[in-house]
Amino acid sequence: MISVEEARARILAAFAPLGAERVALADAAGRILAADAHAGADQPPFSVSMMDGYAVRSIDTGPRRVIGSAPAGKPFPGMLGGGEALRLFTGSVVPDGADAVLAQEDAERDGDTVRFSETPHPGKFVRPRGQDFRAGEILASKGRRLCARDLALLAAGDVAAVAVARRPVIAFAATGDELSKPGEPRKPGGVVASSVYGLSPLIAQWGAIPRDLGILPDRIEAIAALADQTCDLLVTLGGASVGDHDLIQAALGPRGLALDFWKIAMRPGKPLIFGRLGQTPFLGLPGNPVSTLVCATLFLRPAIAAMLGADAATSLRRARLAAPLKANDQREDYLRARCEERDGDLWVRPFPVQDSAMLKIFARADALIVRKPDAPALAEGAPVEVLTLE
Amino acid sequence: MISVEEARARILAAFAPLGAERVALADAAGRILAADAHAGADQPPFSVSMMDGYAVRSIDTGPRRVIGSAPAGKPFPGMLGGGEALRLFTGSVVPDGADAVLAQEDAERDGDTVRFSETPHPGKFVRPRGQDFRAGEILASKGRRLCARDLALLAAGDVAAVAVARRPVIAFAATGDELSKPGEPRKPGGVVASSVYGLSPLIAQWGAIPRDLGILPDRIEAIAALADQTCDLLVTLGGASVGDHDLIQAALGPRGLALDFWKIAMRPGKPLIFGRLGQTPFLGLPGNPVSTLVCATLFLRPAIAAMLGADAATSLRRARLAAPLKANDQREDYLRARCEERDGDLWVRPFPVQDSAMLKIFARADALIVRKPDAPALAEGAPVEVLTLE
Repeated sequence: MISVEEARARILAAFAPLGAERVALADAAGRILAADAHAGADQPPFSVSMMDGYAVRSIDTGPRRVIGSAPAGKPFPGMLGGGEALRLFTGSVVPDGADAVLAQEDAERDGDTVRFSETPHPGKFVRPRGQDFRAGEILASKGRRLCARDLALLAAGDVAAVAVARRPVIAFAATGDELSKPGEPRKPGGVVASSVYGLSPLIAQWGAIPRDLGILPDRIEAIAALADQTCDLLVTLGGASVGDHDLIQAALGPRGLALDFWKIAMRPGKPLIFGRLGQTPFLGLPGNPVSTLVCATLFLRPAIAAMLGADAATSLRRARLAAPLKANDQREDYLRARCEERDGDLWVRPFPVQDSAMLKIFARADALIVRKPDAPALAEGAPVEVLTLE
Repeated sequence: MISVEEARARILAAFAPLGAERVALADAAGRILAADAHAGADQPPFSVSMMDGYAVRSIDTGPRRVIGSAPAGKPFPGMLGGGEALRLFTGSVVPDGADAVLAQEDAERDGDTVRFSETPHPGKFVRPRGQDFRAGEILASKGRRLCARDLALLAAGDVAAVAVARRPVIAFAATGDELSKPGEPRKPGGVVASSVYGLSPLIAQWGAIPRDLGILPDRIEAIAALADQTCDLLVTLGGASVGDHDLIQAALGPRGLALDFWKIAMRPGKPLIFGRLGQTPFLGLPGNPVSTLVCATLFLRPAIAAMLGADAATSLRRARLAAPLKANDQREDYLRARCEERDGDLWVRPFPVQDSAMLKIFARADALIVRKPDAPALAEGAPVEVLTLE
C-alpha cells in the first residue's frame, strides 16, 4: 500500500501535455490554452468617448462652434481646431486635436453654438487608446482554462482563434458479470452499473472526451480486448480488488500490462491499479460507486489536467467541524460531508454513515473532509481541510 | 431608474417553467429535473457481502462445512443451514439463512471445512437490502440540477430516463454600425463585438441554448426583423443607451414592443431594457462588455433559471475587504475584485480601476463586490458580500 500523495506523484509522472490544436474563439469555452494568447490590437483601438456629448480642447473656454457629429463607427475625418466642438456619442472616436469630452447634460446647444456649464480637465470622459491593453500584450496565459470573460477579452483583442490543448480520450469499461444497465432486465444477483453514469460526465467536465466501452463480463478474452483500444488513458471500473486483480493480471499481463501499484492507503477506495498497458496508461478504479468517483476525482482528474497542461493540484478549502471526529486509522480518509456558511465562516458536517456503497449520501454531500493517516480525534469547531464537490 | 431588486423581481415575474422532456440518463448531466425522480428498485437489491469471505449463521460456533461458492452475480440457489458456510466475494448475494459474513483473512480453510478466528455479530459485513435507499424513495427532487453523483445514484435506482426541463432558446444579437467580428477587417472607427463571445458560453452554462443572430447595423429594418424570431427570450447587446433606445423604440415599437423598464440604478450597466416583443420577452443588455456580462449574470441568469424551474436566487458569499472602500452613490455597484483565502477566511480586494469597458480587469477578477446604493465608506477588514464569478 502506498500513500495518496505518492500515488498521485507516480500518476502525474506518467503524463505529459498531449499537444495543441487551433479552434475558433466561439468554440474555445472551457478549453485549456496551449500557448499564451496575445492581443492582436490595442484596446480601445483609438481614443473613444465615454459619454454622449461633445469633444473639445480642454484649454479652450467659452462657447464652442459645433463642426459636425460623429456617431460610434463613423469617425470625423478632420481635426478639431481652437474654439470648436464635435458632437459625439458613447463609443465615438475622439477626433485629433480634442483631449476631453463634455457630457450632453452639461451642454446647452443653440444652432451651431454650444455652451458648457463645466470646464473639463484634459482626458475627461475619454478612454485613451490602449487603456485596457496594448497589441502584443498577453491576454491569457498558457495553461489557463478559458472562461466566458476570457473569450470576450480575446475577442476584444482581435483574436479569432486560439491554440488549445487537445482533449485526451479516456476509454472506460465497467467489469463484472453481475452488472447490467438501468432499465434493462437484471441478472439474478445482479446490480446496475451505476458508476459509469457518474464518471462519464466528470470526464467531460474535466476537459477530456469520455469513450464508454460498456460493461465487460469477468472473462479473460473480454478484458484482454481492452488492449486493442487506442486512447490516451484506459480506465476500468471494478476489477481492482484481490480476486479481480488476478483476473486483470491474467487477461492483460500477456498483453503487456506493467503494474506500477495496485493498493492505496485510503478510504474509500483501497484497491486502485495504476500501470501501463503497452504504451497506454492504465487506471483500475475500485468498483464501489462512491470509491470509483472519489478515486477518479483524486487520480483521474489530475491525470487529465497533466495531459491538458493545466494545473493538476487538488485544491482544498479550510472549514470548521460541525461535529466531532474520532481519530483516523492508517488510511487517508475522505468523509462525505455537507458545508454551510455561518457568519461568513465555512462549517462542515460529516455524514454519520460513510459506507462506500451508499450513493444517496454521496449525492447529498457537497464536500469531502480530508483526514490524513493517523489524524487525531477532533472536537467540534476544529479546523479541517475539505475538497468541494461539484 | 428602478432598483436592481425591483428589476429582478419584475423580470422573474415574466417567466414560468417551460415544460418538460424525457432524456436518457446518460444525457442528463447538468439538466434540471422537471419532476421528482423516484428509485425503481431497492439498493442494494438484496443483502450483499462487503468482503471476500464466508457467509455464516452468527448463532453457530466452531468449524463450518463449506457448501459451495457464490461469486458476485452468481447467487447460491439454496439456503444456508446450521453449521454451514458459503464462500462469498465482495458484492455476492448473502444467501437465505445466513446473517453474517466472516472475512477471508480470519478464515482457515481445510478442504470442505473452514475455521474462523472471529465470532461474528449478526449483520457483520452484510449490506442489508435497501440500506442505501428503497424503491419509490425520492432520489433527486424537482428543480435540482443533476450532477455526476446524481446520475450514478439514479442509475443505481434503475432509472433509465428522467423528465428534465426543456432548455430555453435565447436568441441574441449585437447592435451597432461600429462592430465587426475578431479577425475580420475593422471598419474605420470600428471595434470588435466582444460581448457575444462571453455571453454565448454563459447562456449554455446556465442551461439554455444560445442562438447567435450575429451583428445588426443601426438600421430600423434590421432591428425590426428581430420580431420575426421564434425563441423563449430575445436579447440585444448594446442598443440600450439613450440614443439607441430611441432606435429600438422606433424599430420595435411598431412590431409590438411593450417596455417594462429601461434604466436600472446600478453600475456597471445603467441602461437595461426589459419588456415584451409581442409574446416574446425582450431584454436589452448594455453594450459595454463588462456591463453586458455583469447584467447578464444578474438578470438573464435568473430569467433562464425561472424558465427551467430551477432556483433563481443569486447566491452571495461573505468576505472581508482587503482594501478600504469609499462611500457609494445612489447606484448599486458591482466592483471587480479578486478573492484570496487567508487562514481560512475569505478576503476580497477590489481593482483600483472599475471602468466598464475594461475587459482585462474583468477577466482577471474572480468576484464582484456588491455595494448597495448609498453604502457608507468601509475600512479594510470590513465584511462585504461578494458574487463569485465562474
